[in-house]
Amino acid sequence: MNRGNFNIERFCRQVEEFHGHVAPGVVVGGFMVNLARSYMPAGVLFDAISETASCLPDAVQLLTPCTIGNGWLRVFDFGRYAVTLYDKEGGRGFRVFLVPERIHEQSEIGAWFFKLKPKNEQNAELLMAQIKSAGETLCAVQPVHIRQEFLQKRSKGKIAVCPVCHEAYPVKDGWVCKACHGESPYDFSIYSEREIPAFEDSDPRYAVRRVRV
Amino acid sequence: MNRGNFNIERFCRQVEEFHGHVAPGVVVGGFMVNLARSYMPAGVLFDAISETASCLPDAVQLLTPCTIGNGWLRVFDFGRYAVTLYDKEGGRGFRVFLVPERIHEQSEIGAWFFKLKPKNEQNAELLMAQIKSAGETLCAVQPVHIRQEFLQKRSKGKIAVCPVCHEAYPVKDGWVCKACHGESPYDFSIYSEREIPAFEDSDPRYAVRRVRV
Repeated sequence: MNRGNFNIERFCRQVEEFHGHVAPGVVVGGFMVNLARSYMPAGVLFDAISETASCLPDAVQLLTPCTIGNGWLRVFDFGRYAVTLYDKEGGRGFRVFLVPERIHEQSEIGAWFFKLKPKNEQNAELLMAQIKSAGETLCAVQPVHIRQEFLQKRSKGKIAVCPVCHEAYPVKDGWVCKACHGESPYDFSIYSEREIPAFEDSDPRYAVRRVRV
Repeated sequence: MNRGNFNIERFCRQVEEFHGHVAPGVVVGGFMVNLARSYMPAGVLFDAISETASCLPDAVQLLTPCTIGNGWLRVFDFGRYAVTLYDKEGGRGFRVFLVPERIHEQSEIGAWFFKLKPKNEQNAELLMAQIKSAGETLCAVQPVHIRQEFLQKRSKGKIAVCPVCHEAYPVKDGWVCKACHGESPYDFSIYSEREIPAFEDSDPRYAVRRVRV
C-alpha cells in the first residue's frame, strides 16, 4: 500500500546505503513518514518527532529535510513506534502510529514486532514481503498539537569554558559542563593516571594537564 | 588541514544535501570525525558518541556507518563539541574535541563559536575559509575507554500493549509506556474532546476511543 509517488524499492536502496542494511523497522518507517507527510499542507515548514530511537529516525532523515544534527528531528525515546510531523510555528501536525491488531493480522510482521518467535526462526523474506504489501495499512493517523514549550527555539545561550575539562559548554548548564557533572560515559579510572600533554598556551586557564573527559 | 583522503569540497556538497545547508558546525565536525576515524585500527567495528545534538551528529552520519536509527551513534547532549569513535566490543576509542585557544586564534571561528558578535555581523565567507584552512588543527585527540554499562547491547526486551494508549511499548518501562507516564510532548487539552474513530476490531482491548497520545 503506497501513497503518492513513494517508491518503496528506491527507498530500500537508500536504507541499505544509509542504515547499513534494509532493516524491517526502517521500511515500515518509510511508509509511516510518507503517510504523515501526505497530511502536511504544501509549503508548511515542519519538524519531526520520532517516539523511538530504533530505526524510525533514519526513515525520517531519508525522507524529509529533518535530521538530528539540524535539530528538525527530535527523538523522544518512549519505545513507541510512532512519528509526528508538525508545523514548526504553530505546532499542529499529524502523528502516525502502528496499530497492534493490524500488526497481528500479518503473521510474520506480528512475530517480528512482538518478538513472538526467536529471530533465527523468523522468515526475513516473508516479513519484508508482508511489510511491502501491507504498507501504510498497518498505521493510523492522529491530528496532534505540540505543547508550547517544545516549540520554542532551543538556543545554547552564552558559551564559556568549563573550569574542569577546559572545553566550551553552554553556561546555562551550570558552573561546570554536564559531562563534568557526572554524566560522562567515559571510564575515568582507566585514564586518570595517564598524562595527556599540557597545552602550550601560557594562559593559566589552559596550562593544565587534562586528565578528565 | 586534511588527513588522509578527506575531500572537504565533496563533503560540503553532502552536507548541503543532507543537513539542508553547509553549516559551519557540520564542516568542523567533518574534520573531527575524519580525524577520529584515522586513529581507529582498520577492520575494527566502531560505535560513535556525539557530545552535542547540534550539527556534529550529521557529520558522523555522513562519514561513518553510524546513524541514530541503527543505534551505532548515540548523542549525549552535554553541549560539548566533541566526538568519540570506539571499538564496539572493548570500548577503547578516540575522542576528538575542540581546543578553545585554537578556536580563539581564528578571529571569525572564535566570533562564531563563542558568539562574540551577533550573527548578522559575522562574515560567513571568512568563517568558512578559516574553517577549511584550519581544519583538524582546531582539535585535539584523547584516547578514551567507554564505561561497561554503555557497551551492553540495548534490547527493548518484551513488548506489550500499553493499557492507556493501546500502542506497543517495552514492558521494562513499567505498567504504562513512558509517554503515558507524563513525558508526552503533545497537548492533551486541545484534543481531549476530539473523537478519534474507534477501531473496528471487536477485541475489547482495542474497542476504545483514543483520546490520548
